[in-house]
Amino acid sequence: MKRTLDPPPLPKNVLRALQDIVGHEHVLTTLEDRTTYSYDASKLSALPQAVVFPADVQQVSHVVRLANRWRFPIYPRGAGSGMVGGVVPERGGVVLSLARFNRILEIHAEDMIAVVEPAVVTGVFQKTVAQYGLFYPPDPASLEFSTLGGNVATCAGGPRAVKYGVTRDYVLGLEVVLPTGERITTGTRTMKGVVGYDLTRLFVGSEGTLGVITKIVVRLIPAPEAVMTVSAVFSSIEQASQAVCAVLQARIIPTCLELLDGATLRAVEPYCPLGLSERADGMLIAEVDGPPEVLPRHVAIMEEVFRRHGAFEVFRAETPQDREKLWAARRAISPALGRIRSGKINEDVTVPRSRIADLIKFNQALARKYDLVIVSFGHAGDGNIHTNIMVDRSDAREMARAEKAVEELFREVLRLQGTISGEHGIGLTKSCFFQWEVHPEAFDAMVRIKRALDPHDIMNPGKMFLPNRAFFGTAAVTGPKRSLRP
Amino acid sequence: MKRTLDPPPLPKNVLRALQDIVGHEHVLTTLEDRTTYSYDASKLSALPQAVVFPADVQQVSHVVRLANRWRFPIYPRGAGSGMVGGVVPERGGVVLSLARFNRILEIHAEDMIAVVEPAVVTGVFQKTVAQYGLFYPPDPASLEFSTLGGNVATCAGGPRAVKYGVTRDYVLGLEVVLPTGERITTGTRTMKGVVGYDLTRLFVGSEGTLGVITKIVVRLIPAPEAVMTVSAVFSSIEQASQAVCAVLQARIIPTCLELLDGATLRAVEPYCPLGLSERADGMLIAEVDGPPEVLPRHVAIMEEVFRRHGAFEVFRAETPQDREKLWAARRAISPALGRIRSGKINEDVTVPRSRIADLIKFNQALARKYDLVIVSFGHAGDGNIHTNIMVDRSDAREMARAEKAVEELFREVLRLQGTISGEHGIGLTKSCFFQWEVHPEAFDAMVRIKRALDPHDIMNPGKMFLPNRAFFGTAAVTGPKRSLRP
Repeated sequence: MKRTLDPPPLPKNVLRALQDIVGHEHVLTTLEDRTTYSYDASKLSALPQAVVFPADVQQVSHVVRLANRWRFPIYPRGAGSGMVGGVVPERGGVVLSLARFNRILEIHAEDMIAVVEPAVVTGVFQKTVAQYGLFYPPDPASLEFSTLGGNVATCAGGPRAVKYGVTRDYVLGLEVVLPTGERITTGTRTMKGVVGYDLTRLFVGSEGTLGVITKIVVRLIPAPEAVMTVSAVFSSIEQASQAVCAVLQARIIPTCLELLDGATLRAVEPYCPLGLSERADGMLIAEVDGPPEVLPRHVAIMEEVFRRHGAFEVFRAETPQDREKLWAARRAISPALGRIRSGKINEDVTVPRSRIADLIKFNQALARKYDLVIVSFGHAGDGNIHTNIMVDRSDAREMARAEKAVEELFREVLRLQGTISGEHGIGLTKSCFFQWEVHPEAFDAMVRIKRALDPHDIMNPGKMFLPNRAFFGTAAVTGPKRSLRP
Repeated sequence: MKRTLDPPPLPKNVLRALQDIVGHEHVLTTLEDRTTYSYDASKLSALPQAVVFPADVQQVSHVVRLANRWRFPIYPRGAGSGMVGGVVPERGGVVLSLARFNRILEIHAEDMIAVVEPAVVTGVFQKTVAQYGLFYPPDPASLEFSTLGGNVATCAGGPRAVKYGVTRDYVLGLEVVLPTGERITTGTRTMKGVVGYDLTRLFVGSEGTLGVITKIVVRLIPAPEAVMTVSAVFSSIEQASQAVCAVLQARIIPTCLELLDGATLRAVEPYCPLGLSERADGMLIAEVDGPPEVLPRHVAIMEEVFRRHGAFEVFRAETPQDREKLWAARRAISPALGRIRSGKINEDVTVPRSRIADLIKFNQALARKYDLVIVSFGHAGDGNIHTNIMVDRSDAREMARAEKAVEELFREVLRLQGTISGEHGIGLTKSCFFQWEVHPEAFDAMVRIKRALDPHDIMNPGKMFLPNRAFFGTAAVTGPKRSLRP
């Protein structure tokens, strides 16, 4: 957290107007309070001028209209658990916390939909719908604390995306306050609906740059009847990677298909011992769910595929304890990495499944070239390989080497026809690489859409787009400005 | 086909420029040729000034740039099988046929994706990928002749959407020529990808108003191992409707769950005899697919659900012939309806599943109120009930009553929290109802996006938006215009 430069306070009349809209007690301005809302999981940080907690959509709309009048930036904020600085108020302005939008408004078991407010925590929502025998599949690693609004804004993924898709695939409709203050509803409560442009999916993944999400209609599916888990250990990462494709080619779509490379296994072993052989250089954890009749056969097919691709140890989780042990190892990765180095640069690159082995071999070569520890693991079933470059952030030379490695990684991922972000998004940390992937004409189309909906660039400005503007550049409110649209 | 007013010919220099771009033999201007490209399945018709057949994306781009220079409308066209006049060149201008974009460019079995050109026929594509053990689920009724490009432009659905979703759910990326002529690529070749705005889904379902689709990346899934089909006959449509919800609440997600109301059954019986009792007032056809171990149990559960909801006849298709017989009845609906009346107004309204019974009862009352024959059938599993008002188009009084009935139907569908179009789109036929569903602020947001990407309104103008402009209004090319963007 480097960025602590304090922007000038809001002009008194703007502050008073904010207090009038949301109530005096729902506007925070002390340094302590503003610091709390200055950062996210990226460790980037910048102080806002104020934090507001609107109670309802009308208040959101009024705050946004005020922002247009006075030209101050608005930063919509859920749990602040994003990995890329997407909510960091890097140009001063006002953090708009959705914390009071925390109700599950409706669960309609017959129609298998739910209507929720954006600050509902994803894990809480999943447990609630489970009581109805229903299932909301998206499962970002942050699900115990991240919110559905944040998940929608970033199109959050997770391990289960292999079978079930990502957040986008479950959002049917939204209520959004546009950057110009209008409240709109998009989409439908039905599975099908083709009336007009798909604004719903335009907002999904737009990282808070196109509006404030105030209500979400999601579709639910019946909860799976049963689940089975199996793991396989390989002496080479190529074998493990090839097995990933082979599972899918055997017509099995696992719920999750996680890969841990040798570096990951060596990091996890002291922390959460799996008793792995020293030969172990790659591990897969596969889970299938569905009707109980079919799971043993599907697991047997996967076991056969794993052995055929050289797995020297295949382990079927026969009990809930066995299953828990496997997932404990997967969950142990993040804390275990903390023992290798104090910091990590976690890139959620994604490549076509057939290129996973190429990517991991590239990462190994990159580690040697730049004398870095790089661990690769993640959602191999959809090619989403989390590449973690372990760093000591106080070591400037190591950081410089790591930054070079990230650049080479992104170039290679794009050469492999992949994407630089499968699920975290762009935010601040990747915005300087945005145009490596998005070509100028498509970039221009996105900018045209942004300008059409946010003519004054007040909604989460500087994210994804135009990364080179200075912190607290032109946008921080320092006094009255002539408004074109009062 | 009423609209045959012939717009003035293109200015000679514009025609020559078109011929220079695509080659003399790929520009059609005779009345006979232009008539062929004047209509679609809606029976609406309007003559274009020319029809062009570009060979590649560069030619498409040049034609679009020419259209911006001379301000003539472009109408991208696939098979012309749409139901709502979406490709009808109602303001003159140039039909841009994608017919020469007819290649499957790549099928990558390991990554389970394909890259196709827009004029590939959906059914041909499905058969081709089946040879790789792969499956492209979207199945609009037109699949034997409609194209993937048209399917993407309309976000086509079909019966299998209950389990597998719609076209949107299978499109990973696109190559598009924007209305200003730039060629862009959107999306990824990977299952996950969150870099920038989701332009891919913005183009899906935009009915050719935001650009010309020139390439499509779709995801494929493993082909299902087995399929089973069952039907049930009910003496009341309420019972059949309630059984639809009950199936899904029993945790079964059928591949298809089709409903035929009494009027439909009576129309089909003489044409494709199923030997149904006179008591029959509703029928469900349900299909499940997946691993063979589980299908008999799932079918047994559905049979039990059907009986519990009053089905007096439940029929399990034990052989391919049995299965074919059931689907023959479903397919016979359209031709059978032709025997009732010469014309039909087919509205693909969609309601939440729990409101299907309400909708069908409403349709019955509507038929009585306006002295019309209304048959209701369709994809009950996702609430998409095709409501067909049978008309004799030469009977002005019947047509007037039918138009009133459509208006009441749409009002009721919106009251039931449904949508006026589940899969056909808006085009021309529903554009005057567009703002019944899309509220002014959301409409304005869509218009802002349209203007941002198509500042001269040259790309399929008048569809969805602004239905009240006259045919051959301001846009038909009659002579040189000063161009702001030459």
